[in-house]
Amino acid sequence: MGDVPNTSPPAAAGAGAILQMVRDGRATTRAELVALTGLARSTVSQRVDALLGDGLLVAARAGTSTGGRPPTVLRFNADLGVVLAAEIGVTRCHVAVADLDACVLAEAIDEITVDDGPDVLPQVVARFEALLAEVGRPRGDVRAVGVGLPAPVAFATGRPADPSIAKWNDVPVGDLLGEALGAPVLVDNDVNVMALGEHRLNWRATEHLLFVKVGTGIGCGIVAAGEVHRGASGSAGQLGHVPVRRAGDVRCRCGKTGCLEAVAGGGALAAQLTAAGVPAATVQDVAARVAEGDRTALALMRDAGRDIGEVLASIVDFFNPAVIVFGGELAASSDELIAGARQAVYERSLPLATRDLLMVRSADDARAGVVGAAVLAIEHVLSPAAIDEALAVPE
Amino acid sequence: MGDVPNTSPPAAAGAGAILQMVRDGRATTRAELVALTGLARSTVSQRVDALLGDGLLVAARAGTSTGGRPPTVLRFNADLGVVLAAEIGVTRCHVAVADLDACVLAEAIDEITVDDGPDVLPQVVARFEALLAEVGRPRGDVRAVGVGLPAPVAFATGRPADPSIAKWNDVPVGDLLGEALGAPVLVDNDVNVMALGEHRLNWRATEHLLFVKVGTGIGCGIVAAGEVHRGASGSAGQLGHVPVRRAGDVRCRCGKTGCLEAVAGGGALAAQLTAAGVPAATVQDVAARVAEGDRTALALMRDAGRDIGEVLASIVDFFNPAVIVFGGELAASSDELIAGARQAVYERSLPLATRDLLMVRSADDARAGVVGAAVLAIEHVLSPAAIDEALAVPE
Repeated sequence: MGDVPNTSPPAAAGAGAILQMVRDGRATTRAELVALTGLARSTVSQRVDALLGDGLLVAARAGTSTGGRPPTVLRFNADLGVVLAAEIGVTRCHVAVADLDACVLAEAIDEITVDDGPDVLPQVVARFEALLAEVGRPRGDVRAVGVGLPAPVAFATGRPADPSIAKWNDVPVGDLLGEALGAPVLVDNDVNVMALGEHRLNWRATEHLLFVKVGTGIGCGIVAAGEVHRGASGSAGQLGHVPVRRAGDVRCRCGKTGCLEAVAGGGALAAQLTAAGVPAATVQDVAARVAEGDRTALALMRDAGRDIGEVLASIVDFFNPAVIVFGGELAASSDELIAGARQAVYERSLPLATRDLLMVRSADDARAGVVGAAVLAIEHVLSPAAIDEALAVPE
Repeated sequence: MGDVPNTSPPAAAGAGAILQMVRDGRATTRAELVALTGLARSTVSQRVDALLGDGLLVAARAGTSTGGRPPTVLRFNADLGVVLAAEIGVTRCHVAVADLDACVLAEAIDEITVDDGPDVLPQVVARFEALLAEVGRPRGDVRAVGVGLPAPVAFATGRPADPSIAKWNDVPVGDLLGEALGAPVLVDNDVNVMALGEHRLNWRATEHLLFVKVGTGIGCGIVAAGEVHRGASGSAGQLGHVPVRRAGDVRCRCGKTGCLEAVAGGGALAAQLTAAGVPAATVQDVAARVAEGDRTALALMRDAGRDIGEVLASIVDFFNPAVIVFGGELAASSDELIAGARQAVYERSLPLATRDLLMVRSADDARAGVVGAAVLAIEHVLSPAAIDEALAVPE
């Protein structure tokens, strides 16, 4: 930048911040933006014009007029581009194309085997291309890609970071997909992605939220002060190997004894159900028996909920969240699990931490993963800093 | 603000942000500020001039010249004002006057009884006044006041928020001190304040830190993404009433059984030491025996450390901090406690979460509270937003 007086500086209420205000519904007219930002009307107009020029905002005349020219109503143009979202799970991959409001335009679920490692990625890319064709959007419309993986991820590099996930460990998933798709790729742990989506879509006014996923494993995504908390090495939110009383000296797949997952994870529940005379091989079998109202299965879910609540009780004392959202196949299949967890938490946590605590089921659990991955991609593209940078270059 | 083209907007690199860059040592000259902010030289100069005019920055000619005029070196003027800091504990109150770099200029420790309730506040005010007189600073120099209290605090209102602290509950401590001292008052939980001070003075480059205080009670201050995490109701960081194996059905002062504090808190340790034939009535007695190297006391500390580590192991899986700092009378008196905690955490937490984890003793434990309270006050006064607002009004 040259040494020119009064060159427009990167401002706290730059074009990016103004776009955010319109997206949030905090302002729909230039006058409201002036009031909200304290900026001069001309400055606001200049930035709004840049956003209109770029197509990120569209303007419409308000329907009614009280005399004089009706004000222009500003609206975020969520159709300006699309994002691709993938939730790669242990046995299936949920893929979607979404608009810039994280509304799913097309989606598909494919069977995969995550243990096959990054070999599944070409399949994901092919599915993305099929979905784009389905909604009639060219590759060039893709602004970014969001991916959730069932492993801790070094977020900055987009690489899974855990030796226990074998073929995926340290693979540059973000770079591989980025080359194939020609757009920036954000890769994160699946539960972090679910927590993000759940927060942005349903709990935006809440600062501190946990998303607890109960399926084959038991993990947790953390939103602190409105942002995903990934921890020092990207492994935050691990609950599955915390000891619980009932697990005693039961051996866990991690090699230790007494872990939560060893009694309340999907594998443990399938084994317990089978032992009680109700054959169940997988977490899906367990969920199906629970959905049918099988009494043995329901009782097992209640017990598992209590075990999960035993771990959450300590977390509630420590983290003091406003809401805990439960998702994953087992939490989605009945209220028993959450009821058990609630009981344990209210019994054990400190009153001040539970007074206003909500423990609820995810509103749209089956889509939490892809929607969260879409949000991850959208927030990368539309972050105020990214918008300011994109619009700073004169055309 | 009027409708004037190019009125200087509140900028991301406003005067407040520029002050912060100089305070952090990221820039000491206008040229460095231009490079760092991308702002025009004239804009930087305008903002630097405002800060020089206000006295927050001072300018000095650099000692050596390579021909031409030597550049002006900018320095933060930490003497422009002072802050008052108080750490109100259960039996003593540590009070200090500090400059705007959180350097303690004068301090005092008074015996108090926190159970007396807010009646101790006039004593704190009197001590503040005596310290100001000691360092020769008038009341008008006081920019803000920071206070740490041994209770959960509703940070926004400065009121303790826990029925268990009887006379203090819901008392407007911030307002009461503010009226008496004529300056803004920030009130927070003591362990939050310690975590803040420890982070800013010793671990600024670290995003996620825990400060575990072990004394009469056992609590924890949380820094997430560089900011204090207080939780939804201001009660985050409670560890003392999490169950641990060794506590079994030992009754805790909270009314429940099996709590960490019931075996590893100061009171429990004093009782255990006495039972083992080494009379100890208070946490100070325990600390004294430990400091003398009494073998029974040291063994008890190691056990207490293991109990604390049992709780921290779950927290490490969940929160994935980069560093855990130990403070408080019992952690300060020997390395045994931290050794025990380390052992339990490394034994139980997931490898990914402990790979780079540091567990260390506080560098300046006796002052962690007042220094943290001073930092709390300073960050309120010198936050970029506060500076931008203060300098926006033409004189």
